[in-house]
Amino acid sequence: MFDKATLLCNVDPLILSALKEDITSEDVSTNSVVKGPVQGTADLICKEEGIICGLDVFARVFELMDPATKVELLKKDGDKVVPGELLATVTGDMRVILSGERTALNYLQRMSGIATYTNKTASLLEGTKTKLLDTRKTTPNNRVFEKYSVKVGGGNNHRYNLSDGVLLKDNHIGAAGGVKEAIAMAKEYAPFVRKIEVEVENIEMVKEALEAGADIIMLDNMTPEMLKEAIALIDHKAEIEISGNVTKENLAKYVEMGVDYISSGALTHSSPILDVSLKNLHPIA
Amino acid sequence: MFDKATLLCNVDPLILSALKEDITSEDVSTNSVVKGPVQGTADLICKEEGIICGLDVFARVFELMDPATKVELLKKDGDKVVPGELLATVTGDMRVILSGERTALNYLQRMSGIATYTNKTASLLEGTKTKLLDTRKTTPNNRVFEKYSVKVGGGNNHRYNLSDGVLLKDNHIGAAGGVKEAIAMAKEYAPFVRKIEVEVENIEMVKEALEAGADIIMLDNMTPEMLKEAIALIDHKAEIEISGNVTKENLAKYVEMGVDYISSGALTHSSPILDVSLKNLHPIA
Amino acid sequence: MFDKATLLCNVDPLILSALKEDITSEDVSTNSVVKGPVQGTADLICKEEGIICGLDVFARVFELMDPATKVELLKKDGDKVVPGELLATVTGDMRVILSGERTALNYLQRMSGIATYTNKTASLLEGTKTKLLDTRKTTPNNRVFEKYSVKVGGGNNHRYNLSDGVLLKDNHIGAAGGVKEAIAMAKEYAPFVRKIEVEVENIEMVKEALEAGADIIMLDNMTPEMLKEAIALIDHKAEIEISGNVTKENLAKYVEMGVDYISSGALTHSSPILDVSLKNLHPIA
Amino acid sequence: MFDKATLLCNVDPLILSALKEDITSEDVSTNSVVKGPVQGTADLICKEEGIICGLDVFARVFELMDPATKVELLKKDGDKVVPGELLATVTGDMRVILSGERTALNYLQRMSGIATYTNKTASLLEGTKTKLLDTRKTTPNNRVFEKYSVKVGGGNNHRYNLSDGVLLKDNHIGAAGGVKEAIAMAKEYAPFVRKIEVEVENIEMVKEALEAGADIIMLDNMTPEMLKEAIALIDHKAEIEISGNVTKENLAKYVEMGVDYISSGALTHSSPILDVSLKNLHPIA
Amino acid sequence: MFDKATLLCNVDPLILSALKEDITSEDVSTNSVVKGPVQGTADLICKEEGIICGLDVFARVFELMDPATKVELLKKDGDKVVPGELLATVTGDMRVILSGERTALNYLQRMSGIATYTNKTASLLEGTKTKLLDTRKTTPNNRVFEKYSVKVGGGNNHRYNLSDGVLLKDNHIGAAGGVKEAIAMAKEYAPFVRKIEVEVENIEMVKEALEAGADIIMLDNMTPEMLKEAIALIDHKAEIEISGNVTKENLAKYVEMGVDYISSGALTHSSPILDVSLKNLHPIA
Amino acid sequence: MFDKATLLCNVDPLILSALKEDITSEDVSTNSVVKGPVQGTADLICKEEGIICGLDVFARVFELMDPATKVELLKKDGDKVVPGELLATVTGDMRVILSGERTALNYLQRMSGIATYTNKTASLLEGTKTKLLDTRKTTPNNRVFEKYSVKVGGGNNHRYNLSDGVLLKDNHIGAAGGVKEAIAMAKEYAPFVRKIEVEVENIEMVKEALEAGADIIMLDNMTPEMLKEAIALIDHKAEIEISGNVTKENLAKYVEMGVDYISSGALTHSSPILDVSLKNLHPIA
Repeated sequence: MFDKATLLCNVDPLILSALKEDITSEDVSTNSVVKGPVQGTADLICKEEGIICGLDVFARVFELMDPATKVELLKKDGDKVVPGELLATVTGDMRVILSGERTALNYLQRMSGIATYTNKTASLLEGTKTKLLDTRKTTPNNRVFEKYSVKVGGGNNHRYNLSDGVLLKDNHIGAAGGVKEAIAMAKEYAPFVRKIEVEVENIEMVKEALEAGADIIMLDNMTPEMLKEAIALIDHKAEIEISGNVTKENLAKYVEMGVDYISSGALTHSSPILDVSLKNLHPIA
Repeated sequence: MFDKATLLCNVDPLILSALKEDITSEDVSTNSVVKGPVQGTADLICKEEGIICGLDVFARVFELMDPATKVELLKKDGDKVVPGELLATVTGDMRVILSGERTALNYLQRMSGIATYTNKTASLLEGTKTKLLDTRKTTPNNRVFEKYSVKVGGGNNHRYNLSDGVLLKDNHIGAAGGVKEAIAMAKEYAPFVRKIEVEVENIEMVKEALEAGADIIMLDNMTPEMLKEAIALIDHKAEIEISGNVTKENLAKYVEMGVDYISSGALTHSSPILDVSLKNLHPIA
Repeated sequence: MFDKATLLCNVDPLILSALKEDITSEDVSTNSVVKGPVQGTADLICKEEGIICGLDVFARVFELMDPATKVELLKKDGDKVVPGELLATVTGDMRVILSGERTALNYLQRMSGIATYTNKTASLLEGTKTKLLDTRKTTPNNRVFEKYSVKVGGGNNHRYNLSDGVLLKDNHIGAAGGVKEAIAMAKEYAPFVRKIEVEVENIEMVKEALEAGADIIMLDNMTPEMLKEAIALIDHKAEIEISGNVTKENLAKYVEMGVDYISSGALTHSSPILDVSLKNLHPIA
Repeated sequence: MFDKATLLCNVDPLILSALKEDITSEDVSTNSVVKGPVQGTADLICKEEGIICGLDVFARVFELMDPATKVELLKKDGDKVVPGELLATVTGDMRVILSGERTALNYLQRMSGIATYTNKTASLLEGTKTKLLDTRKTTPNNRVFEKYSVKVGGGNNHRYNLSDGVLLKDNHIGAAGGVKEAIAMAKEYAPFVRKIEVEVENIEMVKEALEAGADIIMLDNMTPEMLKEAIALIDHKAEIEISGNVTKENLAKYVEMGVDYISSGALTHSSPILDVSLKNLHPIA
Repeated sequence: MFDKATLLCNVDPLILSALKEDITSEDVSTNSVVKGPVQGTADLICKEEGIICGLDVFARVFELMDPATKVELLKKDGDKVVPGELLATVTGDMRVILSGERTALNYLQRMSGIATYTNKTASLLEGTKTKLLDTRKTTPNNRVFEKYSVKVGGGNNHRYNLSDGVLLKDNHIGAAGGVKEAIAMAKEYAPFVRKIEVEVENIEMVKEALEAGADIIMLDNMTPEMLKEAIALIDHKAEIEISGNVTKENLAKYVEMGVDYISSGALTHSSPILDVSLKNLHPIA
Repeated sequence: MFDKATLLCNVDPLILSALKEDITSEDVSTNSVVKGPVQGTADLICKEEGIICGLDVFARVFELMDPATKVELLKKDGDKVVPGELLATVTGDMRVILSGERTALNYLQRMSGIATYTNKTASLLEGTKTKLLDTRKTTPNNRVFEKYSVKVGGGNNHRYNLSDGVLLKDNHIGAAGGVKEAIAMAKEYAPFVRKIEVEVENIEMVKEALEAGADIIMLDNMTPEMLKEAIALIDHKAEIEISGNVTKENLAKYVEMGVDYISSGALTHSSPILDVSLKNLHPIA
């Protein structure tokens, strides 16, 4: 559940913008047939097995349109849900329910899709010390929702954006003139509360990174032999992240080797939605 | 390619907001290692077969950050691309290229993913008169990009939002007191340039819709027998749309029956990304 | 009355912007003499005969400034009002009433002016099947208010903007290479829920428009003879709109000929305001 | 002509908002028939005699959409124009010209309408020392354009808004407990660079206003006799403004009596537009 | 205390922007340890002697985040406060209190710092007719708070900004071609409710300013002899302002000479903060 | 110097907002005397010894108003400057220079004030390993400028805001139930790239913090004896920060003890401005 500060600063402006995307002048269909405020209620029904996520965003869409709308949640984010299950009821002005329905569902379905997909992947790491991470490969203007969904699904968040984490990649290293130089420059420049992460491609770079005092080392594109050597070299003096092209098949191998983190862009860029639906809208006395 | 009016009014504000999502104070990694403007160039490389889409959005990200950035496009939206293919080059301040890379790729990968997925689905309808439609099940704050990608992929757009099309669903019909009443009210209320579409579930409703002068009739959840009867009844007096749970297997049947449109939410809500990558950044003299 | 979705997405941001236009630092006059919250009440009085419109916008101005303000409406939009009539009372912090008065009245007077003027024009069409339409010649950043006022006054809305309707004018036809080509291109490009309207100037163009399947044909600058010929040709196969330079005198002729729509820019660009006034503000216990 | 500071801070944001009002997704008609950038040119033609005003706003609309658009102005704000006169040419991407045309003309026609109407009224005061003033009865979100148009038409501006001028009306006087008290409180509270204006209804109030040191006295609703007495009493110790219900007929009387200012809300709230039109768009090599 | 109109139009948007500056994704520390809404209360304690200012801005920060937050104020703006004094209590969701604390205190400390510093300076003018003025040397995006604090501290406000006051400086005079010309041009151009202030450097300019009818004359950089001569010349025919480099030592001299206003940029650009602190946060039943 | 990404995302919107604060309708004084574009040039002159900072922000103010303005910088941020020194020249439309002057100087003076004050404080730490840190006690809506100025002055930045660093204070520890619990919860909740800092008040808490694996320990309100004991205990297993009430006198002691960081709110909340001035504006041919 998002706290009030996050709602005000990040969530509400995006929801409002999404509503304006869908209602540029008015909801013509609804306003054609409902001429004034009519109290009604509708049911939010699950149509597919998975992890539900985004219930309070779903509710917030309606509350922003009309604070008088009441959304009763019968499940909470992270709950396992099955087809046919009643997740929530929405009660208020029928025009608000009709006009907000699609935007509310678009958020809920996507967030639940990510939570469900993350949950499946994270379950492969259960019982190990290796953690599943997301990336910055999120949908533009949806990061706050997608990073939250990863967490609800059992994953962990990597840095939020370019401003709150240091990750030195090949291009940064090239610009600095080497791994050592890049790390030293980042330690000099970045706020001291930042950990310094560096992406390395061979054993020489691992050594330099360790010497220069990297906090996290991302091992990229290494053969299994190289990986083992790198991990042995690092020997818990830095945290280890594996990124890219991780599959169910090779996941087990990385876990065995004892890496701390495995990151996957697919959690946020390619998970299908979870189907949920608003049904049974009817006027109430 | 987006025209200037669409860029100014819809695209630029969303790109700017996406950049602010990723750069809340500054790009700490880049600014650690590149201390001032350094001219550089990088290559945009395809990593997966598909339909490329969003090249000018990719370019626009960099141009908004710095109008001096030059993006040379070697492909255009809608082109088939294959792994290893050079799609574009980006030349400008290396800090701009590094700081804008992720946002630019996030747009391009998603848009190309939708175009590719749409293209595969649309190809099943080739040679028929049936057209593939998208829906309003788009990612919040990404509709302008996603509807465009559907078109580039060979699909057609349904209404853009709640304001520019009338679609009377069960709840509207319920509120109006019947199909006939709903259509009459919409004809009375909606700007006369709107076509009136109505969703029906049985033959009786089809008859009412025709009598009331619906422009488009959406047949929902009908058995093949009912469908045939409905289509015969309609007899080209209104356009016919089929929506929901359309699969590769049953697609052929609908086409045979002669429906005008088949709509699919999955085009925008569940297509995986197409992998593209920015490589080989290096300073230039 | 605007529904909550339209208020949130379109009306509130414009009202807020209008208030900021009038209060860039503070209301110096009011704050000079009223040092803190003092409950007061004032009367909204009609000063001119006409159709009142915009009462809930009037109320919304005060509610946005202070949700505790109570505006009791004694009339509703569309009512005929006469000089001296009490239209509403506003009760709340006197500073809110004083500081919001001008903005609230500016909206109400303009909207009522348009409704009144539209009503007079529409009454000339009473008892006929011809409908009065507005245009896009609205005041910038006031369209949502002005289109609504036309409706309240008994007119009908043409398309809302460039995005939700297709109207092919001489320049579009020129660019396309002909009426037929323009209509074909629009049918190919525009979302299929759009009707296609085309502006024609002679009989040849009417024929092409009909063949190409235009939904609406706008007859422009035709002599009465040509008009009759065109209308006979169209013979209800498309809707007919007459635009431009329509006067009380020639209106009757068009109606006789059986055109479906007559559009008038003057409804929104040249109607004088209706005078209303906030009077008798006094503190209450 | 607006200076750069006014453009950036006040004019551009309003124009951008107006464009977004007219283009919520894209210009469907234009994009149907013009598939990419095509250079074209069009003529701005006068269709009605009057004072032209808003030429640079007209130009700015196109420049904001595309800085490459060239608008050549052949007249300047304040010039008298006659039907058929060529006012300007617009050259650039035809899609930009087509999509921006209506918004650009909506501004130009309204601004010219106000300038023309103001000019007619101001001409009645020519050769006298009495000046014509506008009011705050402007169209919401159009004040910067309308106050400017009044000036171009030969009128003068009263205060811009509630923050930059003090005008104590009956309600303020009531709240303060009297004319003297209200003026004293305003002198105490308001920034000292503000002149203090007070609205009075009888001779007693005039005396109090003078004693309290009002800079400007607005005489409201007085009989001709009272007016003469008041003006004699004031005897150039304060400036005199007459407001409300001023007609061509009674204007002369006020002028004779020697009032300094006559203000008229009608300048901005009820002047009809001046007809201008964009014609003859054609592609250029 | 800010009235509702000022809050809505000026204060709230700036507070919201300040909160977004401090919370770009979420308050990670707080959300780590407080997992959901927990009611709590905290004390606002004074830590330094001075004039408190900004209490309702302090309260507004929390109310914007969550309208359910209750801030009880035990002091009011302008009160003298001493170390250890309890100024207010804040009760609500502990996460709201923790996440809003810094922004709320940043406003309160700065505003109180300005009020305290202004108060000290103004006290040197007590018992004289000379008034202390602020300038436009305020912190960007903080003017509404800083001008208010000056008033609370016992100072007076000069013009709010470039739009609501005329002050002709050397550059304006140069551009106009002389003092007389500049004043005449301003009288012609500026809304007539503006007073005209002019900055002069020698006796000749004083004479010109008087002749041209300046309302306020700012004496700049004059020797004591020149000052006396100038003041005698002006002889209450215009108000007199002294600006720049005023110190405690020379203040008395200006007062003696009978200047009306002394302005000081330091009030807003160089006053240190007043230390206040939020203490003793604890959960409540 | 700010890079393009930081300019676009953070700096430009704040500058634009500051300009709108100062120009709510237009610059009346300037527009009175300069009727159209006149090329001019002015000199930026130092009036006080210090460290200059914010030169490109100064330039950006004018460039945003008019990209044609040329600002030639003769110094760069961080340079020592002395009274009388020419820092830059501004060349462009005189109205742009006059209207932007105050906003540009307000930024430059404040930023230089902070850099100068920081520089003085940092010089006391020269030759030691102890670094000077800023805090979040920045002026609302000015953080990006103030944190940058601290760096230019020779200080280091602590976390940017609540989202990009974890700092567990007494209230967080209380809510969590202890130091150990708070750190564990933060390690579980916060993105793994965050360092965990904890504020402790006694030796027991230091021990807990070390055991729980805090990255940074802030020693608060400790006696010199306690401090020594704490530092010995920590023994480089965590970084050490001292905060609050640090004076020139006691600074040396902390340095001797070997703390890593000393943070000071005064750098941003109480440094006086550095005086600079725009002089000698004159038209050029």
